[in-house]
Amino acid sequence: MPSSPALKLHPDRLLPTEPAVRAIARELYESVRQLPIISPHGHVPAQWLADDIPFTDPTSLLITPDHYVNRLMHAHGVDLSELGVGRGPLTAEESRQAFRIVCANWHVYRGTPVRFWFDSQLADIFNVTVRPSADTADRIYDQIQECLDSPEFRPRALYDRFNIEVLATTDDPCDDLAAHRRLRDDDSWSRRVIPTFRPDRYLEAASPGWIDTVDRLAEVSGVDTSDYAGFIAALENRRRYFVDHGAVSSDHSHLDARTDLLEPAEAEYLFNLARKGEIAEHEATMLRRHLISEMARMACDDGLVMTMHPAVRRNHHLPTFESYGADVGTDIPVRVEFTDALRPMLNRYGTHPNFQLVVFTLDETVFSTELGPLAGFYPSVYAGAPWWFIDAPEAIRRYRAAITESAGFTKTSGFIDDTRAFCSIPARHDMSRRLDASFVAQLVAEHRLDADEALETVHDLVVTNPRRAFKL
Amino acid sequence: MPSSPALKLHPDRLLPTEPAVRAIARELYESVRQLPIISPHGHVPAQWLADDIPFTDPTSLLITPDHYVNRLMHAHGVDLSELGVGRGPLTAEESRQAFRIVCANWHVYRGTPVRFWFDSQLADIFNVTVRPSADTADRIYDQIQECLDSPEFRPRALYDRFNIEVLATTDDPCDDLAAHRRLRDDDSWSRRVIPTFRPDRYLEAASPGWIDTVDRLAEVSGVDTSDYAGFIAALENRRRYFVDHGAVSSDHSHLDARTDLLEPAEAEYLFNLARKGEIAEHEATMLRRHLISEMARMACDDGLVMTMHPAVRRNHHLPTFESYGADVGTDIPVRVEFTDALRPMLNRYGTHPNFQLVVFTLDETVFSTELGPLAGFYPSVYAGAPWWFIDAPEAIRRYRAAITESAGFTKTSGFIDDTRAFCSIPARHDMSRRLDASFVAQLVAEHRLDADEALETVHDLVVTNPRRAFKL
Amino acid sequence: MPSSPALKLHPDRLLPTEPAVRAIARELYESVRQLPIISPHGHVPAQWLADDIPFTDPTSLLITPDHYVNRLMHAHGVDLSELGVGRGPLTAEESRQAFRIVCANWHVYRGTPVRFWFDSQLADIFNVTVRPSADTADRIYDQIQECLDSPEFRPRALYDRFNIEVLATTDDPCDDLAAHRRLRDDDSWSRRVIPTFRPDRYLEAASPGWIDTVDRLAEVSGVDTSDYAGFIAALENRRRYFVDHGAVSSDHSHLDARTDLLEPAEAEYLFNLARKGEIAEHEATMLRRHLISEMARMACDDGLVMTMHPAVRRNHHLPTFESYGADVGTDIPVRVEFTDALRPMLNRYGTHPNFQLVVFTLDETVFSTELGPLAGFYPSVYAGAPWWFIDAPEAIRRYRAAITESAGFTKTSGFIDDTRAFCSIPARHDMSRRLDASFVAQLVAEHRLDADEALETVHDLVVTNPRRAFKL
Repeated sequence: MPSSPALKLHPDRLLPTEPAVRAIARELYESVRQLPIISPHGHVPAQWLADDIPFTDPTSLLITPDHYVNRLMHAHGVDLSELGVGRGPLTAEESRQAFRIVCANWHVYRGTPVRFWFDSQLADIFNVTVRPSADTADRIYDQIQECLDSPEFRPRALYDRFNIEVLATTDDPCDDLAAHRRLRDDDSWSRRVIPTFRPDRYLEAASPGWIDTVDRLAEVSGVDTSDYAGFIAALENRRRYFVDHGAVSSDHSHLDARTDLLEPAEAEYLFNLARKGEIAEHEATMLRRHLISEMARMACDDGLVMTMHPAVRRNHHLPTFESYGADVGTDIPVRVEFTDALRPMLNRYGTHPNFQLVVFTLDETVFSTELGPLAGFYPSVYAGAPWWFIDAPEAIRRYRAAITESAGFTKTSGFIDDTRAFCSIPARHDMSRRLDASFVAQLVAEHRLDADEALETVHDLVVTNPRRAFKL
Repeated sequence: MPSSPALKLHPDRLLPTEPAVRAIARELYESVRQLPIISPHGHVPAQWLADDIPFTDPTSLLITPDHYVNRLMHAHGVDLSELGVGRGPLTAEESRQAFRIVCANWHVYRGTPVRFWFDSQLADIFNVTVRPSADTADRIYDQIQECLDSPEFRPRALYDRFNIEVLATTDDPCDDLAAHRRLRDDDSWSRRVIPTFRPDRYLEAASPGWIDTVDRLAEVSGVDTSDYAGFIAALENRRRYFVDHGAVSSDHSHLDARTDLLEPAEAEYLFNLARKGEIAEHEATMLRRHLISEMARMACDDGLVMTMHPAVRRNHHLPTFESYGADVGTDIPVRVEFTDALRPMLNRYGTHPNFQLVVFTLDETVFSTELGPLAGFYPSVYAGAPWWFIDAPEAIRRYRAAITESAGFTKTSGFIDDTRAFCSIPARHDMSRRLDASFVAQLVAEHRLDADEALETVHDLVVTNPRRAFKL
Repeated sequence: MPSSPALKLHPDRLLPTEPAVRAIARELYESVRQLPIISPHGHVPAQWLADDIPFTDPTSLLITPDHYVNRLMHAHGVDLSELGVGRGPLTAEESRQAFRIVCANWHVYRGTPVRFWFDSQLADIFNVTVRPSADTADRIYDQIQECLDSPEFRPRALYDRFNIEVLATTDDPCDDLAAHRRLRDDDSWSRRVIPTFRPDRYLEAASPGWIDTVDRLAEVSGVDTSDYAGFIAALENRRRYFVDHGAVSSDHSHLDARTDLLEPAEAEYLFNLARKGEIAEHEATMLRRHLISEMARMACDDGLVMTMHPAVRRNHHLPTFESYGADVGTDIPVRVEFTDALRPMLNRYGTHPNFQLVVFTLDETVFSTELGPLAGFYPSVYAGAPWWFIDAPEAIRRYRAAITESAGFTKTSGFIDDTRAFCSIPARHDMSRRLDASFVAQLVAEHRLDADEALETVHDLVVTNPRRAFKL
C-alpha cells in the first residue's frame, strides 16, 4: 500500500495569494487569531456542557448531527440512515462504517467549507496527520476514538481549549433552561452559556400541534392563553424568564420576513379562529407577520435583540422528512425581500433606542440592494454574517464586498457559527478571521485604509461587533 | 497629544495589487486622468454657478446636502438635525459641531465610497493633510473655512479647476431655467451647464398635489391641461422648452420600470378621473406606465435621451420623512424587472433611430440577466453606470465584470456622478477612471485585449461613451 | 497604410495573473488541454456531418448562424439582413460585405466571449495572423475562403481535428434521425453523434400549430393522439425511438421551471380542450408544467437524462421576429425560481436511481441560493454549466465560486457548448478548461486543495463529470 497523502494545515490558508497582500493579511490575522470566541447564536445543547457528557464516538460527534456533511453524502447516493441520521445510537460497527463512507467519499467535499472545517478539526483537535480516504478511515477513526475516551476531550475541557467566551444556545420558549441554570450555579464552571428565545412554532397558528403548544405555554407561564391578550402576556412572561436566565436575543425563522401589523381586533379574531383550529393557512400567515412586529415591540421593553433567519423551504423533500425528520439537509432556500417586508416594523421601532435587529439571509442578492442600505440608515439594523449555505469563503468575500460599501464594517454582526457541530466552532471562527483579515488587507493594499485602521477593524469584527450587535 | 495620523492620497489607490497588472493599470489611468469631466446627469443647482454664490461653511458644503454622509451617521444614532438636515442655515457653532460629529465618527466610513470621496476632497481641494478625528475636526474645519472665504473657492472657479466640460442639472418641467439662461448669456462664462427634464410628479396622478401641478403646467406652457390631449401637448411643449435651453435628456424615477401602453380612450378616462381627484392608486400606476411609453414617443420626435432610475422605496422611514423631508437618506432600493417591463416600449421605439434609453439600476441582479442582454441587442438601449448605493468600487467592478460580457464596453453610459455634492464630482470621476483602468488592465494581463485597444477603451469610457449615450 | 496589428493567441490567456498561481494553473491546464471534447448538448445539425457538406463561405459559417455575433452588431445599428440573417444564401459579394461589417466593428466585441472564441477560431483553425478591421477584412475573408475550399476543412475532417469524442444534436421528437442513422451505419465514420429529444412545442398546448404538431406525432409514432393517454403513449414511443438512436437526454426550455402535477382527470380535461383549440393560455401553462413532471416519470423508465433550460422571453422584439424569425438574438432572459418550481417533480422522482436532472440557468442569483443547495442534496440533480449570456469567463468564475461551496465539483455538469457555431466548439471548451484550471489553481494557492487533488479535479471536470451527468 502506498503511503497516504498527508493532512497538513498551511498557516496561510485562505489568505490572499499576492505576496504583498498576503503579508498584510498575515499580520492582521495574527493579531486576532487567538482572541476568544464569541458565539452569540448556535445550536449546541446546553446539556452537553451542564453534564459534561463524554462524546461517545467519532460518527455521532462529527457526522450524524452535521447536515452539512450528510447532505453532500446524500447527493452522492448515500442513505442518510447509513450515517446514523434519524435513528437511535449506532453500534460500534455502524459508527465505524458511517465514518468509512465519509472518508471514502472525501473528494466530494473539495472546494466546500465542510472540507475546510473538517480538515481543521481533524488536524487541530485530534492531531490527525493523514488525509481521509477509504484507506485511512479506520486509522483516523481509532485515533479520534482514543481522544474521545480521554478527559481532555469532554465538552467542558474542549470549551476551555476552544477559548469560548460566550456561547448561545437556541431554546423553546417553554424550556425550563435547567441546564443553563445548572451551569450558572456551578462553581467549577466560570464560562458563559446563554439561552436564546426561539418562538417560531408558537407564531405559526396553522401548523400541526399549535393548540397544544399554546396550552403548554399557559401551563409553563402560568398565564391563561385562551385569548389573544393572554397569549401575548404569556409570551412576554417567557421572554422575561429567558432574560432572567441570561438570554440576550430572540430568534425568528419563517418563510418570509414580513412584519405587517394588524388592527388589535383583527389579531384577536384570527387568534380565536386558531384557538378553535379553524384558521386558514393565509390567515395564519397574516397573524404570524403581525406577531413578528409584536416581538419587536416586546424587544423595546425587555431589550432582547431580535434576529431573523427567514426564507427557507423546510423539508423540501417530504419523503426524507417523513423518514428522518427535520434538519437533516433537505431545507432549500427561497428568495427573500426585506425592504417592504420590514417596513411596518421599522417604521414603528426602527429608531427606538432599545431595539436591535440582526438580519440574516441566504439570498445574497439583498446584500447591496436591501440589507446594506437598511443597515446603513436604521440605527437598529445590523447585517448578519452570511448564513448556512453561504457561510463559506467565497460567499463571505462577496458579503464583505457587497455590504461594506453601503453599511461599512460597524453595522455588521460579527461572525455567527450557527452550528451544533461543537468541534467545528473554532474552525468556523478561524475561517472568518482569515477571510476578514484578507478583505481588510486588500483595502490596505489598494490604499483605501491605513494600517492602524486595519488592525482596529479586524479586532472590532471579532470582538466589538458581536458584543454590540448582541448587547453582550 | 500624540500627532494625528496623516491624510495622504496614494497615487495607486484602487489600482490592482498584482505588480504587473498595476503597472498596466497605472499607464491606462494616467492616459485619462486629466481628461475633462463630462457629467450628463446630476443635481448641482444651476443657480450656484449662475450667481457664483460663495459657499458659506464646510458643513453646508460637504455634509448637510450629502445623504451618503448623513445616512451612515444616522445609522450610528446621530440625529439628522444635528447635521443640519431639514432646517434652515446653521449658526457658525452648529456648523462646527456638525463637522465634529462626522470627524469623530470617521471610522464608520471605512470601506465605503464616502471615505474615498471625502479623502480626495479634503486632500485635493482643501489641502488637508491630517486624518479627520475628534482631535483634528476643528483644525480641518478652520482650514476649509479659510479656503471657502477666498475667491478661488467660489463655484465658477472650482468648476474651472475641476475641468468640467459639461454639467447637467435636474429640473422641474415648469422651471423657467432662468439660471441656465443667465449662464448661456454670460460672456464671462464659457463652459456648459444644461438642464434635464424630470417630470416624475407630473406622471404620478394619485400623488398629493398632482392637480395643482397639472394646473401649473397649463399656466407655464400656455396649453390647456384640462383634458388628456392638452396634458400631453403641454408636456411636449415643456420638453421643447428644455431642448431649446440645451437639455439633452429627460429623467424618470418611479417604483418600477413598466411601460405598458393603454388604449387612447383608457388613458383619457384615467386622466379625467385624476383631474377630478378620483383616480385610485392602481389606476394611477397604469396611467404612469403608459405615460412613460409616451415619453419615449416624444423622445423619437424631439430627440431627448431618456434615462430611467427606477425601483426605490422613497422615504422608507416615514417619521424621518415627516421631520426632515425627502432625499435625506431614508430611500431603500427594491428589486427591479426590466425584460418584461420595458418590452412594450422597446417593441414600439426600440429600433427608432432617434431613440436612446439609458437604464440605471440599484439591483445588480439584472446586470448579466437583463440589462446586458437588452443593451446587447437593442440599438437604443445603454446600460447606465452603477447608481447610488452601488456607485462604489466593488460594485463598479461587479458591473464591468457582469455587463461587459453581454453588452461590451460600447453600450455602457460612461460614468455618471448623479450628485449634488459639488466638490465630490472630481473624486467620483477619478474613482471611476481608476476602476475602469484597472478592469481593462486585467483584461490585458489575461491576454484578452491588446495594449492599443486598452488605451482606446479607457479613453472611450471617459469621453466617447457619455457623449454618444447622451448625444453630447 | 500602416501595418495591421497582429492577432496572436497568448498561451496563458485567461489564466490568473499572479505569477505563482499562474504557474499552478498552467500545469493544470496543460494536463487537460488535449483531452477529447465531450459535447452532450448543442445545435450542430447532424446532416452536416452525415453528408460532410463543405462549408461555402466565411460568413455563412462564422457569422450568419451565430446570434452571439449578430446581436451585438444589431445593437450598433446594423440590420440583421446585412449579416445574412433570415434569408436565403448570400451572393459572394454579400457574404464578403457582411464579413467586412463585422471586422470593421471589431472593437464592439472587446471584453466579450465572442472575441475570445473568434480570435481562437481565426488563429487556431484558419491560421489568421492579423487582427480583424476594416483594413484586413478582405484579406482574412480570402484566407478563410481558401481554407474552406480544401478538403481539410470539411465537417468530418474538422470533427476529427477538433478531437470531438461525442457530439449531441437537438432534435424534434418527430425527426426520423436519418442523419444520425447514416452516421451510425457509415463504416468510414467512427466517431459519435447522438440526438437529443426536445419536445418543447409539443408541451405548449396553446401555441400556434399545436394541433397539427400533435397530429403529426400520431402519424410518426403510429399511436393515436386524439386523447391524453394516446398523447402520452406517443411521446413515450418517440422517446424510445430516440433512445434506440443513441439519445441520452431530453431537453426542455419553457418560460418557467415549474413542475406542478395535475390529477389525471384534470390533465385529460385540459388536453381535450387543447385538442379542440379551446385551451386558454393559463390552462396550457398548467398542462405544460404537469407534462414536464410526466417527462421525469418517463425518464425513470427509459433512462433519458432530463435537462432544463428555462426562463427566456423568446423573441422579445416582435418586429425582429416577424422579419427574421426565431433564434436571431432577440431572446432576453427573465428571472427563474427553482426551489418551489421543481419541488413537485423532485418529491416524486428526486431520489429515483434512474433519474438525472441537469438544470441550466441564465439567472445567476440561483447559483448559491437554489441550484447549489438542490444539487447538494438530491442525488438526481446536477448544476448545469453557465448558459448562453453567462457562458463567458467572468460569469463562469462566478459560477464556480458560487456553486462549488454548496454542491462541490462533482455535482456540476461539466462544460456544455450549446452552440451551432461548429468552429467555435474547440474554443469554447478551451475557454472552460482554462477557467476551471484557474479556479482550481486558486484553491491550491490558498491551500484549500492539494496538488494531486487539483489534477484529479480538472480531469474530472473535463471527462468524468459530463460522462456521469449525461450517462455517457
